[in-house]
Amino acid sequence: MPNEPMPGIPFQELDTPALLLDLDKLERNIERMARFFADKPSSLRPHAKTHKCPQVALRQLEAGAIGITCAKVSEAETMAQAGIQDILIANEVVGRQKIDRLTDLTQRCNVMIAVDNAENVAALSHACRAKGVSLRILVEVDIGMRRCGVQPGVPTLELAQQVSLASCLQFTGLMAYEGHLVMIVDAQEREARVRQTMIPLQQTCELLQREGLPVQIASGGGTGTYDITGTCPPTTEVQAGSYVFMDSTYLKVRPEFEPALTVLSTVVSRPASGRIVTDAGRKSMTQEFGWPQPLGIHGASVRSLSEEHGILDLAEPDVVRLRPGDKIRFIPSHCCTTVNLYDNLNVIQGDVLVNIWPIAARGCAQ
Amino acid sequence: MPNEPMPGIPFQELDTPALLLDLDKLERNIERMARFFADKPSSLRPHAKTHKCPQVALRQLEAGAIGITCAKVSEAETMAQAGIQDILIANEVVGRQKIDRLTDLTQRCNVMIAVDNAENVAALSHACRAKGVSLRILVEVDIGMRRCGVQPGVPTLELAQQVSLASCLQFTGLMAYEGHLVMIVDAQEREARVRQTMIPLQQTCELLQREGLPVQIASGGGTGTYDITGTCPPTTEVQAGSYVFMDSTYLKVRPEFEPALTVLSTVVSRPASGRIVTDAGRKSMTQEFGWPQPLGIHGASVRSLSEEHGILDLAEPDVVRLRPGDKIRFIPSHCCTTVNLYDNLNVIQGDVLVNIWPIAARGCAQ
Repeated sequence: MPNEPMPGIPFQELDTPALLLDLDKLERNIERMARFFADKPSSLRPHAKTHKCPQVALRQLEAGAIGITCAKVSEAETMAQAGIQDILIANEVVGRQKIDRLTDLTQRCNVMIAVDNAENVAALSHACRAKGVSLRILVEVDIGMRRCGVQPGVPTLELAQQVSLASCLQFTGLMAYEGHLVMIVDAQEREARVRQTMIPLQQTCELLQREGLPVQIASGGGTGTYDITGTCPPTTEVQAGSYVFMDSTYLKVRPEFEPALTVLSTVVSRPASGRIVTDAGRKSMTQEFGWPQPLGIHGASVRSLSEEHGILDLAEPDVVRLRPGDKIRFIPSHCCTTVNLYDNLNVIQGDVLVNIWPIAARGCAQ
Repeated sequence: MPNEPMPGIPFQELDTPALLLDLDKLERNIERMARFFADKPSSLRPHAKTHKCPQVALRQLEAGAIGITCAKVSEAETMAQAGIQDILIANEVVGRQKIDRLTDLTQRCNVMIAVDNAENVAALSHACRAKGVSLRILVEVDIGMRRCGVQPGVPTLELAQQVSLASCLQFTGLMAYEGHLVMIVDAQEREARVRQTMIPLQQTCELLQREGLPVQIASGGGTGTYDITGTCPPTTEVQAGSYVFMDSTYLKVRPEFEPALTVLSTVVSRPASGRIVTDAGRKSMTQEFGWPQPLGIHGASVRSLSEEHGILDLAEPDVVRLRPGDKIRFIPSHCCTTVNLYDNLNVIQGDVLVNIWPIAARGCAQ
């Protein structure tokens, strides 16, 4: 097996495909988002599903985040292992095996989860009582994404009441994610639709308040909506994740953040003057949001990705001098799923590799 | 961290998402493909990119495969570490770092690679001479896929001549992959087009023969074409990979193999009678070939995959009794990229977990 690369080398010396993280851009992204929330009534609880890396999470917390968000129990386990204390698992936790892991986790950190189902509430309460632990609960409300969640109004009230009556569960508030709106490129339309969407959630909070169930936490929002959802009642916490790395998709929506994450690849073939083939394919870059964006190559566009090849067409072959062995970088179209393909972030400053951070929660989908 | 699951439990007891490999189906797939090649002039060199698992590769070799195919140097390193001796890296190996790893690898196993570029041939020869090793070389020929490869005829002859003159390189033959044809569902059309496509390759072999460069190995083919390419001159080796696990895409083309690979997931929510949400999303199942196929749920179809959610619509909600906590399985639409998301194969026989095989080359894209 090869030697690990050593900090201090130019990143161009790395074998490829390799995931590069520009430290200065990362820190500016973290700082910019922290500054936004510094004087707002809501707080930032960044989503760790994007980076899956404790070193990044710790920097977000140092900058003022009140805790982190995780997608799954296993992701939260990894973050707790790194000493992170306040974790929202922004998801339902269902099934005996997973609830067992969750109740163990409550003994190592302050964890909070979402529910949308009465049977699950009963199972959680039973498991917590059996282990003598307590668990904070948010009721997930469907505000139009049509994924998980109960409907606003009475259905939310009824589930919140059940949680509040269940032993060892603490009803703490609501979670509602406007995921169907975060990618709207037009800023005015995005803002109008988000504010409209939050009205029934705010009304639900008022209903719960009247019924003696104050909503301490209302959690939602993403990178596309942090400044809208984050300034819109009833939101108290925003779960933005992608801002920390960015990708070519979110750059269209949020140009105030910088693309800190790139994939370094090698040209392995130039079989025709108008075609370049690189060593980064679908096992190195995901594509559900579109092709990754090659950086600084005039007229280049991705034609397709095989498993282990990226095939680029060149509109003006004569001006592109790239030869096999040259290295090129891509901005991924979806940072979260691309990061999940790698074991390490190669942290760079300028042209130099300065650190290697393990993506400790890579593959933690349970 | 949770305890590892123990062989002997029903697989339904596994936490999810989990990748299940049906051992009996796996063995029948291996046996069926081995039987095909038993009396053919060509041989099977199965592609390990599909499984990335030495335990599977060793079974393929035991059944008669003459060696294995890998996509990348790092994948080959992992297979060599498991004791596998004869490895074709069916790809160009370009760049100082990668060539360095390759020349190390030649000291641990019998390796063969593809080339399509004169500068790369010179760099390989130089590196092999510096390390005192020898390397078998196939010239990659583009027979219509328009990825890597030189054109048939004189361009192939010229590069083969260069290889044969380069010190420490052994010109061994040609590689040509008809990847643009392997998924044609209509069997007659697929066969006609493959046989047509192989004609210039055969003519190129004859040209090289006349010029004193006999083609010992002509390597190509996939699961979609194994019986066509495998019986068509000049093929001597077939690189089929997916047959061993299969997926919903290849099942349409190759119904004689069985779907041995499934993703086990848990229903986390049934927020409406016609909608089921599972815990297996894009970080657990890939989608470039289409949605994964839910097994045994009447009228169910995948509406979308979020990162950590699979959202199913039910055409006839009343007949589907699934509740949160119930488990359902999916046949992936692309086995190769789905396997690359997991660390382990949970090997099952009937309903019982019988083994856990590490996907040792998971993430080995370098």
